Amino acid sequence: MRTILIVIMMYGFNGKVLRVNLDTQKIDDELLDEKIYRKYLGGRNLGLYYLNKETSRGVDPLSPENTIVFATGVTTGVPLTGFCRHSVVAKSPLTNGFGEAEAGGFWGAELKFAGYDAIVIKGRSTKPTYLWVHDGEAELMDASGIWGLQTRESQEAIRGELGDRLVRIAQIGPAGEKLVRYACILNDLKYANGRSGLGAVMGSKNLKAIAVRGHNRLEFKDPEKIKEIGKWYNENWPKHPGALSRSKLGTSDGLLATNADGILPTRNFVKGSFDHAEDISGERMKDTILVGTEGCYACSIRCKRVVRGKPPYETDPAYGGPEYETLAAFGSLCEVGDLSAISYANQLCNAYGLDTISAGVAIAFSMECFEKGILTKDQLGGLEPGFGNTEAMVKLVDMIAKREGFGDTLAEGVMRASQRIGKGSERYAMHVKGKELPMHEPRGKTGLALQYTLSPSGADHMQATHDPVFQSNVENIKPLGILDPVDRLSLGPDKVRLFKYLQLWWNLLDCLCVCKFVIVPHGAGVFKINHLVDIVNAVTGWNSSLLELMLSSERSITLAKEFNLREGTTEADDRLPNRFFEPLESGPRKGAKISENDLKQAIITYYRMMGWDDAGKPETAKLLDLNI
Amino acid sequence: MRTILIVIMMYGFNGKVLRVNLDTQKIDDELLDEKIYRKYLGGRNLGLYYLNKETSRGVDPLSPENTIVFATGVTTGVPLTGFCRHSVVAKSPLTNGFGEAEAGGFWGAELKFAGYDAIVIKGRSTKPTYLWVHDGEAELMDASGIWGLQTRESQEAIRGELGDRLVRIAQIGPAGEKLVRYACILNDLKYANGRSGLGAVMGSKNLKAIAVRGHNRLEFKDPEKIKEIGKWYNENWPKHPGALSRSKLGTSDGLLATNADGILPTRNFVKGSFDHAEDISGERMKDTILVGTEGCYACSIRCKRVVRGKPPYETDPAYGGPEYETLAAFGSLCEVGDLSAISYANQLCNAYGLDTISAGVAIAFSMECFEKGILTKDQLGGLEPGFGNTEAMVKLVDMIAKREGFGDTLAEGVMRASQRIGKGSERYAMHVKGKELPMHEPRGKTGLALQYTLSPSGADHMQATHDPVFQSNVENIKPLGILDPVDRLSLGPDKVRLFKYLQLWWNLLDCLCVCKFVIVPHGAGVFKINHLVDIVNAVTGWNSSLLELMLSSERSITLAKEFNLREGTTEADDRLPNRFFEPLESGPRKGAKISENDLKQAIITYYRMMGWDDAGKPETAKLLDLNI
Repeated sequence: MRTILIVIMMYGFNGKVLRVNLDTQKIDDELLDEKIYRKYLGGRNLGLYYLNKETSRGVDPLSPENTIVFATGVTTGVPLTGFCRHSVVAKSPLTNGFGEAEAGGFWGAELKFAGYDAIVIKGRSTKPTYLWVHDGEAELMDASGIWGLQTRESQEAIRGELGDRLVRIAQIGPAGEKLVRYACILNDLKYANGRSGLGAVMGSKNLKAIAVRGHNRLEFKDPEKIKEIGKWYNENWPKHPGALSRSKLGTSDGLLATNADGILPTRNFVKGSFDHAEDISGERMKDTILVGTEGCYACSIRCKRVVRGKPPYETDPAYGGPEYETLAAFGSLCEVGDLSAISYANQLCNAYGLDTISAGVAIAFSMECFEKGILTKDQLGGLEPGFGNTEAMVKLVDMIAKREGFGDTLAEGVMRASQRIGKGSERYAMHVKGKELPMHEPRGKTGLALQYTLSPSGADHMQATHDPVFQSNVENIKPLGILDPVDRLSLGPDKVRLFKYLQLWWNLLDCLCVCKFVIVPHGAGVFKINHLVDIVNAVTGWNSSLLELMLSSERSITLAKEFNLREGTTEADDRLPNRFFEPLESGPRKGAKISENDLKQAIITYYRMMGWDDAGKPETAKLLDLNI
Repeated sequence: MRTILIVIMMYGFNGKVLRVNLDTQKIDDELLDEKIYRKYLGGRNLGLYYLNKETSRGVDPLSPENTIVFATGVTTGVPLTGFCRHSVVAKSPLTNGFGEAEAGGFWGAELKFAGYDAIVIKGRSTKPTYLWVHDGEAELMDASGIWGLQTRESQEAIRGELGDRLVRIAQIGPAGEKLVRYACILNDLKYANGRSGLGAVMGSKNLKAIAVRGHNRLEFKDPEKIKEIGKWYNENWPKHPGALSRSKLGTSDGLLATNADGILPTRNFVKGSFDHAEDISGERMKDTILVGTEGCYACSIRCKRVVRGKPPYETDPAYGGPEYETLAAFGSLCEVGDLSAISYANQLCNAYGLDTISAGVAIAFSMECFEKGILTKDQLGGLEPGFGNTEAMVKLVDMIAKREGFGDTLAEGVMRASQRIGKGSERYAMHVKGKELPMHEPRGKTGLALQYTLSPSGADHMQATHDPVFQSNVENIKPLGILDPVDRLSLGPDKVRLFKYLQLWWNLLDCLCVCKFVIVPHGAGVFKINHLVDIVNAVTGWNSSLLELMLSSERSITLAKEFNLREGTTEADDRLPNRFFEPLESGPRKGAKISENDLKQAIITYYRMMGWDDAGKPETAKLLDLNI
C-alpha cells in the first residue's frame, strides 16, 4: 500500500494522514488528496476540517467522542527559519468550542520526516498508551509504566524504551492526566501547544504521548528557490533590529518597553505597569540566570531561553526558561518580581504539563479574591496568596497541577472557578469564552480587544498582530491592502478592517504552521509577506497566490465560527471582561479604558465585514463563496 | 511647478493627471498621490474615482456636467506584450450609468511618454476643439476645420498641423459629433474605445480629438525583472497554441468553433449557428482579403487584421479589418455572409466613429422588426432590410452614423428605438441596461448570462472569462482560489463563485489597462496570473500582492454599482432579454435556454457574495471593508 501512495504522491502534492482509533486500537493511513490539502493548507485549518467533520455536536470535550488532530502544514519541515511548527486541534474543555494551539520545536518537522502530515485520533484507550510513529509506520505502546511521571522522566523512559535519543516526543504531564482544563502538550519538554486545554483532551483519551522519528528526505518542487530564500534570510536577519533583539533577549525583549508604555498586565489587569518590571525583564534574565539559548528546527534566531534559577528556586535547564507570557503571568500579573521563582513556576508547568498563561491568570484571580475577602485562608488550605506572595504563587502551581485542595477549583479555569465560588468573584475572572487572557492590555492597544473577543478559540494574543507593532511600518502590510496606519486607540471601521486582514494573515500562518515572529508585520519579522507565497509555491509546485492563501485562512476562521455556533456559543460570548471598560488604575496610561459601545459596534462591523449576520452567523453566500 | 512634481515623484510612484475644463479652457496638472494611485491602480478604476467624485447625481450624459476621463494604468507603457491599453470612463448616454470602454493601440503608452497618467475633462467648449498633449504640456486647439471630417481625414489634418506623423490621436468621427448614443472613440483609426457611447460624450463637449506625443523614457523600479519576464514571454508564446492561433487568425480564430458549438449569435440571437459561418471566418479572411497584420504597442502577437475588401466593397487598409465581434454583429447576427461587405461596414464604423457591436445589433433589430411587420419599407426610407440583405446592412450603418432617416431612431440604441417604435418591438431589442449585447450566446455558456446582467456598464463580454475557455485548464485559475472546473451550463453557487472571481480578475486587467488576450485564463493567454503581480511590483517598486490587486478590483466593481444606484438603476435592470429564457431555435444547441428562476437566484447569490443586499446595494460594512 505504501508503494501505491508514493506513486500517487509523485503526481501531485498530496499528504498522508495517520488515523488512530483508540477504542479499537486500529491504525490506518489515509491519503490526503491534493485538492483538500490545497484548500485547507494544514495546521489549524486542516485540524478544524477533521474536527468539524468527525465530531458530533455537543460531545463532551473530555469524552472519547472528541477528536484530537495533530497537523503540520504544507511547508512544515522546509529548512528555513520558522517553518517548523504544528497545530493541535480538538473541542476545548475550556471553551466548549473550537480549541487549538500551536507549538514550535522539532516535533512537526520530525512527523514529516516520518512520512505523515497529520494525525487524527479518536476514542479512548482502556489503559494508558502512547503512539509511536516512525518512518511510515505507527503503533500503540503501553504507557502504564510512565503514567503519572513528569515530562522529563517520561521522555527519558520512552526514548530508552525505543532505544533512540533523537525520538521527538509530544506529551502530557500529570496535569493532563488529571484533566486540568488548561493542561498543555509539550515537546522536548519546553515547546508547548499551550492553550485551550488540549493536554486534558489527550489525558481523557489515556494518551500520554506521541513519539515520532523519521528519516525521509522531504522533496521540494523548487529546491533552488528555497535555497535562494534561505540565503536571503541569512543575509538579512543579522541586519534586522527586531530579529537581533529577539535573538539576544528572547520573547521578553519587549517587556520593559511594554511596561514603560503602561500596558504590562499587572495585578490581575488592575494596573498597566509593574514596579519590579526590570527584575523580570529579558535583560535581567540575560545578566543573571541565563545559561543558554535554543532554537526550533532550522531556526537562526534561537529565541528560546535556557535558565538555571537560583536557590531556593533552582531549576533544571532541560525545561528551558520562561517566555514573555510566563514572566508576565507569574510575574507582573501576580506582582511577583522574583525571576528565579517565576522560572521555577515555569519549570513546574513544563514538568506537569500546564499552560503558564492560564495558570498565572488563575493564580492572580485567587490572589484578588483573597485580597477582596472572597476567598479565605481556610478555603486556600492555609495559604495567604496576596499579590506579591511568591511562595503562594509557586505553591498554587503545584496544587493546580495535582488538583490538590483549592488547586482542584483553579484547575477548572477562572470561569468555572468563579462560578463555583460565586460572591461576585466573576468580576475578577479574566477570560473570554472560558479561556484565560494572555499578557496584553487592550486598553492601550484596542486591536487586542477585537482579538480577545473575536478569536474563535477564546482570548488569544496570536490571532492578529498587536497594533502598535506596525504603526511605524505600515509598508510591510500593504500587500494585505492596508495602506494607512491606524490609531492604536481607535475602534472605528479602519481598526476593524485592519484587524480583519491582520487576523486573516496571522491565522494563515497557523494554517501553514509558520512561526509568527519570523515574518512581518511582527517586530522581529524579517521575511516579507510575499515570501510566504514564494515558499508555498517552491515547496508544492502550486501556482498559489496571497489571494488564494488568504481565502483559505478566511475559510478556517469562518469554519471555526460555524463550529462554535454549532456548539452553542452566541454573540453574547464575544465579549470582554468588564474590567476593561473601567479605567486603568495607574501607570502612564492611567485612566485609559475601552468604550463598551464602541467595541460592540466594532464587533458588529467585523461580523458584517466577514460576511456574517448581526449575530455573527456566517451568511449562506459567504459559505458558498468560501466553498465550505 | 513641474520641477516640484518631479522631485515629489522621485520619492514614490506617483502619477500626474491633466485636468481640462472646457468651459473655462483652463488646463492644470494634478499630482496623483501614490496612495490614491495604489488604491485605484488606473484605467477603469481611476476613471470611476474621478467620475464618482466630480459628477453630480442625475446629470445628462450629453451635457457639459458629465466628466470624461482617459486613464492609463500603473503598468501602461511597459515594453511587454499587452501592457498598452487605456480606459475611457464617463456617464454613459446608452445606460445612464457607469460608462467605460478600453482600447489598445499606441495612444495609452504615448500619453505616458508625454508625462501623464490620465486626463480628466469637464465642461463644453463653445467651438470645436482638440486637445494637444506633448511632453508635459497641453493646449486646446481649434478643431473647427476638422469638425465633420471622417477619422482618416481629421487624423491627417491634425498630424499635418502639428507637423509630426507620429502623433497618436484618439478621436471621434461624425457619429460622435451627431451624438449617436453608441459612438466610439478611435485611435490610429482602428483601435476603439468601442462601447458605452463615449464618443457621443466627447461630441457633446465639442471635443474632436486628443492628440498626444511624448519623448519621456519611463522609469521602472526593477528593469531587470521586466526584461526577464519579457524574455520568458518571447520564449513561450511561440510554443503556445492559443497565442499562435490568435497571431495567425486574429480575434476571429474561434468563430468556426463557436459556430460548431452552436453559440454563434445568429439572426438577432434567434439561432446559434450560421449557414455561412465559413464565409465570415478568420480562415476565409486570411485566404481572401487579408493584406497584413498589426499589433499594439510592444505586442508580439499582432492580432489586428488589415484587409482590403473586394468590389463593390473595396476598403482602405488604413482602417484595419473586422474583429470577431464585428464579423458576428454585421455577419451572422444579420445573416450576412459577405466578408467584404462586413469589412466595408467595419470601415464605415471606424471612419464615422461607431461601435460595431451596437451598430450590428441595432441593424439586426431593425431586420427582425421589418420581417415581423413592425417596421415598414416606408418607415425605412425605401429599404427592405430582411435578414441577409447585405446592401441594407451597409446602408443602415451609414444612415445611423449620419442620423439620416430611420438611422436617427437606430442611433438612439435598440432600447430607446424600441420604446419609440412600440408595437412589441421591445422583444427584439437585445440589450442589457440599454447597451446592446455583444456576440456571445449565454444559452450555451451560462457565465455569460451573469456577465451580461451583472456588468455595471451593461451587456459586456469582457467582464469575465467566458466559461468554456478554462474548462480544460482550471490549473490556470487556481491562484484565484478556484480549484474545480464548473459545468458550462450550471447557474448554481459554484458558477456564481467562479464568475465572481473571474470578474474581479478581468476587471483588474481593466484597472491596469492590460490586454485580456495575453494573460490566462484567456485561451490565447501566455502570461500567468502571478506574472501580473510581478510586473506591477517591478514597475512601481511596491510590494503588492494578488490580494491587494483584487481588492482594488472589487473596489472598482462596488464603486460602479454605487454609481449606478446613485443614478437610479435598480435590481430590475440586472436582467437578461426574455429571448434567452426561450429555446434556441436551431443548431447543435437547439432547445437550450436559460432558466429565469435559476438566473434570478444566481444574481441574488452574487449580490450576497459581493457583500451587497438582496436588492444589490453594497452593505455599509463592504464599503468600509474596501475603504470606499
